[in-house]
Amino acid sequence: MSLVVVGSMAFDALETPFGKTDKIIGGAATYIAWSASNFTQTIKQISVVGGDFPQEELDALAARGVELEGVQIKKDEKTFFWSGRYHMDMNTRDTLETQLNVLADFKPVVPDSYQDCEFLMLGNLVPAVQLSVIDQLKNRPKLIVMDTMNFWMDTCMEDLQKVISKVDVLLVNDGEARQLSGEYSLVKAAKKIMATGPKYLIIKKGEHGALLFNADQVFFAPALPLEEVFDPTGAGDTFAGGFMGHLAKTKDISFNNMKTAIIIGSAMASYCVEKFGLERLKEIGKQEIDARLDEFVQLVNFDIELG
Amino acid sequence: MSLVVVGSMAFDALETPFGKTDKIIGGAATYIAWSASNFTQTIKQISVVGGDFPQEELDALAARGVELEGVQIKKDEKTFFWSGRYHMDMNTRDTLETQLNVLADFKPVVPDSYQDCEFLMLGNLVPAVQLSVIDQLKNRPKLIVMDTMNFWMDTCMEDLQKVISKVDVLLVNDGEARQLSGEYSLVKAAKKIMATGPKYLIIKKGEHGALLFNADQVFFAPALPLEEVFDPTGAGDTFAGGFMGHLAKTKDISFNNMKTAIIIGSAMASYCVEKFGLERLKEIGKQEIDARLDEFVQLVNFDIELG
Repeated sequence: MSLVVVGSMAFDALETPFGKTDKIIGGAATYIAWSASNFTQTIKQISVVGGDFPQEELDALAARGVELEGVQIKKDEKTFFWSGRYHMDMNTRDTLETQLNVLADFKPVVPDSYQDCEFLMLGNLVPAVQLSVIDQLKNRPKLIVMDTMNFWMDTCMEDLQKVISKVDVLLVNDGEARQLSGEYSLVKAAKKIMATGPKYLIIKKGEHGALLFNADQVFFAPALPLEEVFDPTGAGDTFAGGFMGHLAKTKDISFNNMKTAIIIGSAMASYCVEKFGLERLKEIGKQEIDARLDEFVQLVNFDIELG
Repeated sequence: MSLVVVGSMAFDALETPFGKTDKIIGGAATYIAWSASNFTQTIKQISVVGGDFPQEELDALAARGVELEGVQIKKDEKTFFWSGRYHMDMNTRDTLETQLNVLADFKPVVPDSYQDCEFLMLGNLVPAVQLSVIDQLKNRPKLIVMDTMNFWMDTCMEDLQKVISKVDVLLVNDGEARQLSGEYSLVKAAKKIMATGPKYLIIKKGEHGALLFNADQVFFAPALPLEEVFDPTGAGDTFAGGFMGHLAKTKDISFNNMKTAIIIGSAMASYCVEKFGLERLKEIGKQEIDARLDEFVQLVNFDIELG
């Protein structure tokens, strides 16, 4: 039984108010796998890279227990590249350059050894690619979680709606929830979106935390107030990785356990943003994660007497 | 021993995406008193109104246990009037009209009977007026809480800083915390602001909740996700009233009790925004408040096992 992760593996070049990087390793599936591998060791990756993707990065993932049979390596092509600049609020960014490269005609192939998929994490990617992976799985996974972004709402809403109708948990940010539903109120947006398929909706609000909706229940997870958000790239993917890693580890997909999983995802994301790219995620282990989880407990813990 | 509240009592005319009102009753001190009177009955009001302010509104406050000896009634003048229009996000608004009227030369006079002031709530008002009230009290209150706004930062920063240096708890929103400190990071902003006097800082983030800072501690209170924010006018004052009402009731000014007080303030604010003006606040009682507090407990409650 495994956690299958689908998503980009990429090069990013980033500019933030605090500094800039040359090409560094990025990609949704990379962040998800690094984050999730703190909690579960049966991660199976589906992605595509070019011949320019460093072998040592693949080796580092393999050493974390991430299987890479489903990662296509196109020796004569180049890895997906994205370059962006963040504004002071770190919630808005401009894309400076996008080179799709190997992603332009990515046809995911699910290896036979991945057919034991119990948890499927669809990282942000072309909806048709996400759908293809669902279709290739012979047994419906216990839980399908999907991330996406406004770009697909603008360019291929029909495909996107098709995938959304097949997943259990959808992850979007507040702006995307509003765009997808046409509702400004996030409570109304959540109801409309859940009516199209997903039983659970997670609305990520960056520095303002995240909301988990399920039927008439709602849970709010705060973001840790940080002195400095150094680089928000990958924070959403890292959140998804922690969320999914915890669920795959515990095999408990109740609303109650999803609340815990969201706090764990938030803790992972709070580390991610402390340095550029994957740097901080590669440094932390169980001790750091537990310390941060304790900070979250302190952050929201209060006593109230009713009646 | 009493809770003294200083602030405006006013007429508001409001436009929101959901409707508009003619002149209705508003003002920081009005909202604070209505909210706080759910928790403590020794509220003493300091404000000023014109001859046009309805006697039945004063009577309604008196019936809630609010003493009005410190409310000046200038029979031949008009009550402060503010008219504003809210944008779709309800966090931004345009002022359409401001008539200072009686507020233009308001000189607060603290009655002798208010000298038992144990808790002082300085609602948003000209800093010089707030300062005058502090100066007129012969004994320093156990706790001074101050609300303010960006307008005073733009127009009389020196006076404002003087008041801030004398209070225990400062309430501002996120934009104001950034403006006051010159720091974008709210954690850095909080440290800088607390270094100028207040031991506690509450940063209100509207629909994104509120943060309470004290030395190296931080607490995060969510806002309840609502189907509709009908009218946000007075939400901050209502929050302050619930916060201060609970502290005055319990007489416990520990960080831990302030966390509870913030949740109570948030619950009160979540009712305030459901209808125009004071309408909803006038309808609710202990039963509604307890029900909403329970919703807050459910909203943030999670289990996590460390180690």
